[in-house]
Amino acid sequence: MASTGIVCRVFASFEGPEGAGKTTLIRGLDARLRARGVRTLVTREPGAALGGRIRSLLLEGSGMDHKAELFLFLADRAEHAATVLRPALAEGRVVLCDRHADSTVVYQGYGRGLSVDQLRAWNLFATDGLTPDLTFLLDLPPEIGLARLSDKDRLDREPLEFHRRIREGFLAEARREPHRWVVLDATQPPERVLEQAWQPILDRLPRD
Amino acid sequence: MASTGIVCRVFASFEGPEGAGKTTLIRGLDARLRARGVRTLVTREPGAALGGRIRSLLLEGSGMDHKAELFLFLADRAEHAATVLRPALAEGRVVLCDRHADSTVVYQGYGRGLSVDQLRAWNLFATDGLTPDLTFLLDLPPEIGLARLSDKDRLDREPLEFHRRIREGFLAEARREPHRWVVLDATQPPERVLEQAWQPILDRLPRD
Repeated sequence: MASTGIVCRVFASFEGPEGAGKTTLIRGLDARLRARGVRTLVTREPGAALGGRIRSLLLEGSGMDHKAELFLFLADRAEHAATVLRPALAEGRVVLCDRHADSTVVYQGYGRGLSVDQLRAWNLFATDGLTPDLTFLLDLPPEIGLARLSDKDRLDREPLEFHRRIREGFLAEARREPHRWVVLDATQPPERVLEQAWQPILDRLPRD
Repeated sequence: MASTGIVCRVFASFEGPEGAGKTTLIRGLDARLRARGVRTLVTREPGAALGGRIRSLLLEGSGMDHKAELFLFLADRAEHAATVLRPALAEGRVVLCDRHADSTVVYQGYGRGLSVDQLRAWNLFATDGLTPDLTFLLDLPPEIGLARLSDKDRLDREPLEFHRRIREGFLAEARREPHRWVVLDATQPPERVLEQAWQPILDRLPRD
């Protein structure tokens, strides 16, 4: 069985502000999973689909219409679900995805003021109902996350008040579905965050 | 008044298959309007917004997820309405737009099988309710339209049955809102099509 790897089929997403340590946590979990013989896929939204071209539209543009921004995220999500996420899960991989549907609910809903219920419905439409089994929130006061960033993109340059609404939005979403969300204190050292994230992943792997 | 032009504020869209003569008709109407001192804006969807980058994504890709395709059209439409169409109409221009919301209802709904009612609602959301005052349908049997094309893009290469559903879809939409649609027989010579399209435009201009 070692040649094909262990079949797990877990879809884990990672949410929170830029600078919270999502990339580091995903790398750490990926290394641990591979060391156990688990096949993984590390991916992200936006941008793993359509050659990253939607990602560059979203991050480079300035003053883009809020609805246009939303629809670009949904286009990327639909393509990503159909061509990347579903095939990887069908192969039995553990998928580690940097941002997914909850980012849209929080940034476009709590952040931009679009209807949160409508955004949830659109996410389900875009992905044909594919939602993460497990979502890690790397929670961090926005002042700390922004100070960690050397290179700010279009979203990072929003005013602090916007980033406060984002943080509250993520925490509200986590409270709404506690069975899916794992809230981690991202002010802790990275190795401690990794340790706390590892157990919920481990609980979903087949027993030895 | 000649220096500022005549203020008209008419939003006209042009629908129908590729090869039906939309570009020729728009050029002809634009020339006649300018000759009367009317300020115009000639534009199109997808692609007038965001530097044409969504257009290239849509037309170059192959095998794109149908929902991703839909959301790219809606992103382009939202950006176009906010940054191009509304400003031009606010200046009192006559806007001549090659394809608009009805193309999405027909291609994604009648063509791809998505919900026509949902598509109509999303169009209204994307444009904040901006809809054409006047829509010209250049109606043509698909065999004739396709034979006229030398360079087929991704949509043009769909099977003939798809193009038949598109034609029926456009005719059904035109029957549904006869006050807005003008159905033109695009097998006629271009100068005759132009003549027939001119009167409905003229009816909406201020009297001399």
